[in-house]
Amino acid sequence: MANITKKVSWSSRGDEPAPAGEGTPLLNGAGGAARSYSRQFSGSGIFQIGRLSTVDLEEDPAPEEESAISRPKEIPHNEKLLSLKYESLDYDNSENQLFLEEERRMSYMGFRCLEISRWVVCALIGILTGLIACFIDIVVENLAGLKYKVIKENIEKFTEAGGLSISLILWAFLNSVIVMMGAIIVAFFEPIAAGSGIPQIKCYLNGVKIPRVVRLKTLVVKVCGVICSVAGGLAVGKEGPMIHSGAVVAAGVSQGRSTSLKKDFKIFEYFRRDTEKRDFVSAGAAAGVSAAFGAPVGGVLFSLEEGASFWNQMLTWRIFFASMISTFTLNFFLSIYHNKTGELSNPGLINFGRFDSDVSSPAFLHLQGMCGLLGALFNVLNYWLTIFRIRYIHRPCLQVMEAMLVAAVTATVSFAMIYFSDDCQPLGEDQAENYPLQVSISSCPVVPFRSYVCPTLQLFCADGEYNSMATAFFNTPERSVRSLFHNPPGSYNPPTLGVFTLTYFFLACWTYGLTVSAGVFIPSLLIGAAWGRLFGIMLAHITPYGSIWADPGKYALIGAAAQLGGIVRMTLSLTVILVEATGNVTYGFPIMLVLMTAKIVGDYFVEGLYDIHIKLQSVPFLHWEAPATSHALTAREVMSSPVTCFNRVEKVGTIVDVLSNTSTNHNGFPVVTRVMDDDEPGKICGLILRSQLIVLLKHKVFVERTRSRLNQRKLQLKDFRDAYPRFPPIQSIHVSQDERECMMDLTEFMNPTPYTVTQETSLPRVFKLFRALGLRHLVVVDSENRVVGLVTRKDLARYHLGKHGLEELQLAQT
Amino acid sequence: MANITKKVSWSSRGDEPAPAGEGTPLLNGAGGAARSYSRQFSGSGIFQIGRLSTVDLEEDPAPEEESAISRPKEIPHNEKLLSLKYESLDYDNSENQLFLEEERRMSYMGFRCLEISRWVVCALIGILTGLIACFIDIVVENLAGLKYKVIKENIEKFTEAGGLSISLILWAFLNSVIVMMGAIIVAFFEPIAAGSGIPQIKCYLNGVKIPRVVRLKTLVVKVCGVICSVAGGLAVGKEGPMIHSGAVVAAGVSQGRSTSLKKDFKIFEYFRRDTEKRDFVSAGAAAGVSAAFGAPVGGVLFSLEEGASFWNQMLTWRIFFASMISTFTLNFFLSIYHNKTGELSNPGLINFGRFDSDVSSPAFLHLQGMCGLLGALFNVLNYWLTIFRIRYIHRPCLQVMEAMLVAAVTATVSFAMIYFSDDCQPLGEDQAENYPLQVSISSCPVVPFRSYVCPTLQLFCADGEYNSMATAFFNTPERSVRSLFHNPPGSYNPPTLGVFTLTYFFLACWTYGLTVSAGVFIPSLLIGAAWGRLFGIMLAHITPYGSIWADPGKYALIGAAAQLGGIVRMTLSLTVILVEATGNVTYGFPIMLVLMTAKIVGDYFVEGLYDIHIKLQSVPFLHWEAPATSHALTAREVMSSPVTCFNRVEKVGTIVDVLSNTSTNHNGFPVVTRVMDDDEPGKICGLILRSQLIVLLKHKVFVERTRSRLNQRKLQLKDFRDAYPRFPPIQSIHVSQDERECMMDLTEFMNPTPYTVTQETSLPRVFKLFRALGLRHLVVVDSENRVVGLVTRKDLARYHLGKHGLEELQLAQT
Repeated sequence: MANITKKVSWSSRGDEPAPAGEGTPLLNGAGGAARSYSRQFSGSGIFQIGRLSTVDLEEDPAPEEESAISRPKEIPHNEKLLSLKYESLDYDNSENQLFLEEERRMSYMGFRCLEISRWVVCALIGILTGLIACFIDIVVENLAGLKYKVIKENIEKFTEAGGLSISLILWAFLNSVIVMMGAIIVAFFEPIAAGSGIPQIKCYLNGVKIPRVVRLKTLVVKVCGVICSVAGGLAVGKEGPMIHSGAVVAAGVSQGRSTSLKKDFKIFEYFRRDTEKRDFVSAGAAAGVSAAFGAPVGGVLFSLEEGASFWNQMLTWRIFFASMISTFTLNFFLSIYHNKTGELSNPGLINFGRFDSDVSSPAFLHLQGMCGLLGALFNVLNYWLTIFRIRYIHRPCLQVMEAMLVAAVTATVSFAMIYFSDDCQPLGEDQAENYPLQVSISSCPVVPFRSYVCPTLQLFCADGEYNSMATAFFNTPERSVRSLFHNPPGSYNPPTLGVFTLTYFFLACWTYGLTVSAGVFIPSLLIGAAWGRLFGIMLAHITPYGSIWADPGKYALIGAAAQLGGIVRMTLSLTVILVEATGNVTYGFPIMLVLMTAKIVGDYFVEGLYDIHIKLQSVPFLHWEAPATSHALTAREVMSSPVTCFNRVEKVGTIVDVLSNTSTNHNGFPVVTRVMDDDEPGKICGLILRSQLIVLLKHKVFVERTRSRLNQRKLQLKDFRDAYPRFPPIQSIHVSQDERECMMDLTEFMNPTPYTVTQETSLPRVFKLFRALGLRHLVVVDSENRVVGLVTRKDLARYHLGKHGLEELQLAQT
Repeated sequence: MANITKKVSWSSRGDEPAPAGEGTPLLNGAGGAARSYSRQFSGSGIFQIGRLSTVDLEEDPAPEEESAISRPKEIPHNEKLLSLKYESLDYDNSENQLFLEEERRMSYMGFRCLEISRWVVCALIGILTGLIACFIDIVVENLAGLKYKVIKENIEKFTEAGGLSISLILWAFLNSVIVMMGAIIVAFFEPIAAGSGIPQIKCYLNGVKIPRVVRLKTLVVKVCGVICSVAGGLAVGKEGPMIHSGAVVAAGVSQGRSTSLKKDFKIFEYFRRDTEKRDFVSAGAAAGVSAAFGAPVGGVLFSLEEGASFWNQMLTWRIFFASMISTFTLNFFLSIYHNKTGELSNPGLINFGRFDSDVSSPAFLHLQGMCGLLGALFNVLNYWLTIFRIRYIHRPCLQVMEAMLVAAVTATVSFAMIYFSDDCQPLGEDQAENYPLQVSISSCPVVPFRSYVCPTLQLFCADGEYNSMATAFFNTPERSVRSLFHNPPGSYNPPTLGVFTLTYFFLACWTYGLTVSAGVFIPSLLIGAAWGRLFGIMLAHITPYGSIWADPGKYALIGAAAQLGGIVRMTLSLTVILVEATGNVTYGFPIMLVLMTAKIVGDYFVEGLYDIHIKLQSVPFLHWEAPATSHALTAREVMSSPVTCFNRVEKVGTIVDVLSNTSTNHNGFPVVTRVMDDDEPGKICGLILRSQLIVLLKHKVFVERTRSRLNQRKLQLKDFRDAYPRFPPIQSIHVSQDERECMMDLTEFMNPTPYTVTQETSLPRVFKLFRALGLRHLVVVDSENRVVGLVTRKDLARYHLGKHGLEELQLAQT
């Protein structure tokens, strides 16, 4: 359990309100008398907070806090931490008086119009996501085509003349430069755009607010970044980032404005809250999957499997609708681009080609032994690598340099493999029909911007032959996958495949986690397809099954599914995605079996890749259920206490002071009716959020002690919506000394009916309530309805099942 | 809004506890002062109860109640009623001390074992469901084959000799007799087995306890019934009942015992509660769909779309697993039966055959205008018919006679259509490859039990030709669907198809709702396929699209999807089911579009068929969300009050009296700590169920006033599990006068942490909590935590959006 100094790559920047815990009282709180789990505070930490029980709320820890903010964040990090910097999203509507009044005013027709506008938003999401996918595809295709054309001409020039090292240098240089551009924009402008974005979207849908994850800037960086990394020849795919892109599109479109561009279209104002936004983000993620794989049903299932808690039929249909529109848009525009208008043959970014024949033998069962093992190995290696990166590679320049290094190494390795390979295959018309490889080098037409039809390389092979290793390496991964699936038996030698699998495995593993926008789907498929095909060839040699499973392409498909399943550990959605991408339901059953086995085998060793990365970021992610053995814990042990509460009519000064207290930084405050005796906790009568209080302070909704209202304009729900989601920090709001003496009446703005539980409620029960309703704060009350504690996401996410039973993570201000 | 006298076909029989409302105080309760909705009491009712505000709780309505029970139930019925006879299921665990102690004792390994046994149960469910599907298929095939063989020989005999009326009579007679058998067992032994069972399973998963819906007897009757109805030539399918069968299997297997057979295997005791059982029933329903259509993913989606509320990933995987096992089992055994072991070519009961070619034209868009309209028409007609049946055909003998009549009419109509048809088609080898119709009459091999390969009829056609109308009628619907999909262009004349569509439409509409076990999927597909094919032929004649869409079989597929979607209104699951049954993902997109349109168009006119039937049974079904315009209502208006509460230590006599009160028949009782002043409601400290009290009374867990325990044995959770789910009625428990004076300590057995809301909580918020957590009782408290009301399923289901805004259904003791 070594402590690791960590660069926080998802950290807040200056434009965000300071990181805050959901009302978790940091420097105070007894934390329950019956706490029986030991808390180990790792020694080296700055400002590390468990729940110290003696520090007074009034003590001002600001100097230390400020120094922690100003210096480069190198904080202690280990797996057993839970970061306090992530806020939660409010997936439970704050049903205050303003909201209820608006809802009550709205007629039935009003709700119908809302419903229609939801469908319109989903259609827009689908169209825009499809267009983005289209754009990425076309740009990548042309850029990569141009690059390979230049390199190929160079290689051809030097093959006979000698001096291929110049070609190698050219290749490595081109790759590095392209990747550098991608890495620079990611590392310096928007670190959140790194990686596939799927873990971040998972967190968002789970209810964790990852700063800047759904901003326009993120989208731009993501799109440019993914173009650079794919065109730069890294072992990455462009499919994962599509999911993130779709989510950003959804978050933007549904709000009817862009805060970054300072443009408000004054539409869809009703949707400006977390609950509605989440629904659209689900739709966007689904549209992304749908565009990436041409799998609308798979997209819906992805959204549900990764994000949903409460399945709502209407919502599901809308998500489905967005997915369909998205795949249709992509298909339509790519068809136009390819001059095949009306054919609609490009439902997704990746097209596995058509698998036509029957799977009539359960021979694929042989593969299952390997299922998951390789995936688990990938995950373990990547886990170590990520820890290494967190520890040592946390400066943007270092990150860019690493990306460039990987790009150069990828080019070098590819070149070496091609160079030393002696796997020459005849060029011929018997290559897969679905794959436009037939054109030999000499006959390659030089069409500008369509130069990507000639990936075969002759190199040292005889005339009329091509280097088969080059087909695997000298290519974007998507095309390599297809050629592994569909090239006829004999297109690849077993040694070629073996070496390719090995090198590509390590390359892909090294690449995932770089500071570039890139997905892991396609590399996984490629690795799996390579060893699957290898396996198929071997089997055909050894066993009498050869005749039935003569086509190693099918083994490649099954292998690809196994590898991908072993890495990402999705089952239902992945089955559907693969089946939709394959276009043949016959493969559904073997794919299901293989994915299920991969999941079971893999889970035995290590978690899925996305979960590993979520854990390494110390995100307070809520899983589906509370740990099985957690019935012994009750709300009393879990909750944070004491809680900072407000009175129904509270002094402005008090509110400002509490909000300004950077050490607590609570986000939700129970509102209580104080009884005479001040020591007693008050009876709960509502719950108010930091963001609401900030809007109230900003609009100076004060009453004098005489109850005459100072500010005459009645605050509207619109004021809250206009401020959403970037509420100003408390520091930006000036409150004069006179105003501090005024009172603020919270009655109208607080949620008068927060969900409450009693102290005896067991952890699984609290968890279920919290997770099913998407709560952010859950008030714990005693039998008299007096507030005794507050349960937030972090309080629940802290408990998890480790190897030795129930373990408790520490909270840390990372 | 006419009042209809109704035979209650899902009613309780003698072996059930008396119908009871979930603590809804029937004859008392002010029901909220601010109630602003008019209540219309239909005049003719016996014992009709709204919430009269003046009747005293002590008044004994027993005499009238008894007379209502003893006489044949002819109660007023209209659409605006909600029946009180349906109890709810407890999908929220009662976390009492016993339960928590057990959970806390259990080690991590214990939970692992439980998890493994859940997977084992799912495997068993899959296997058994697959075997049942296999059994039904084989028996139906042989029985129908035998019947058609007899009739065909008879027709052949009389075609030349004259006197075909004898054949007609024979046909009608055979049909009627077979159907009669099916109708008799359903009408007299198990009325709940009527219909497809899908509405009942929907209700079960929704949380409504439909009496006897998951019993062994129901399964037996269902299986025999469906065999009779399909073999009897009715316009029905055997797919819907498979879903019900799967659910029953799941409910049985997961409990590790059969109450009917009085056999307890002493396994899976942990699963003997509603929460766990529901999860398995979902898996069973999915396995049923999977076996019926060969669609494992579709099965999972069906379960989720129709039943789920909280999506749990582990649960979904288990459901998926059960589905896969089920389709594999069916496939395996049918392959053996068909002597093609190892080919696994029968993934489902219905096989659409393989659609190979591309859908490269969006010509199907033409169809969308009709989508949903015909489905809506079907639903409207069936709705009127069902009301007619409820009003007039409520005696079992009448029901059997109606079924026989329909069978005879079906035979007659079919015969007439064949007789008057002059659509002769040449027998030839160009018939669909997937459909074994090639054998001409003369060459038909007489293989016992495999006689079903010769459905062509020559009749008055020339030698070498066959009557194409006969192909459509002289056949089980499954085979007709396939022939419509796959027979080459020109196999059917447009007039044949037109007449067939018309007659079959009305026949199917008349048939659904008969007292036989039968599904509506296949007839819908058949109607749709017929008009789709007709449409395709017409279009090919009229437009230049003819060349592209030359194959009317594709139009048939799209038409079938449209018709089925228009009737049942599922989208996501139906898309996947149809795609999986078709075996070709290319058709996914058109099918999606068509289903979506059918849903939107259809919903404009009338609800889906299943929802109509659920509504007509006055089931308190909770939809996905509260009505949009219901924010004006709060828990105060919705709740029932006053509530019958118990003290923590209560007098046995009081408990027995309350439980015996047939007029209230509450099922859940808040437990309160009574304050001194008796008028004040007490503070909530728990919730106890009728069933738990009954077990306590049965085991006489009494303490004397001196607090010495009378019964020394400590009650275990096992005692509750043994009694589950058929808790004895209170009448069967004898409590002596002495015992009545004893006290009962409820502390250990009550749920100490029931969910509560305050009176100001809005209806949508209450609804969300209730629905997301699968609650049965929700206690409404005031600011002092004193019980002021109780919200149950019926209180929430009463509000729905009608044509004139929010409407309120009446509660009635139907």
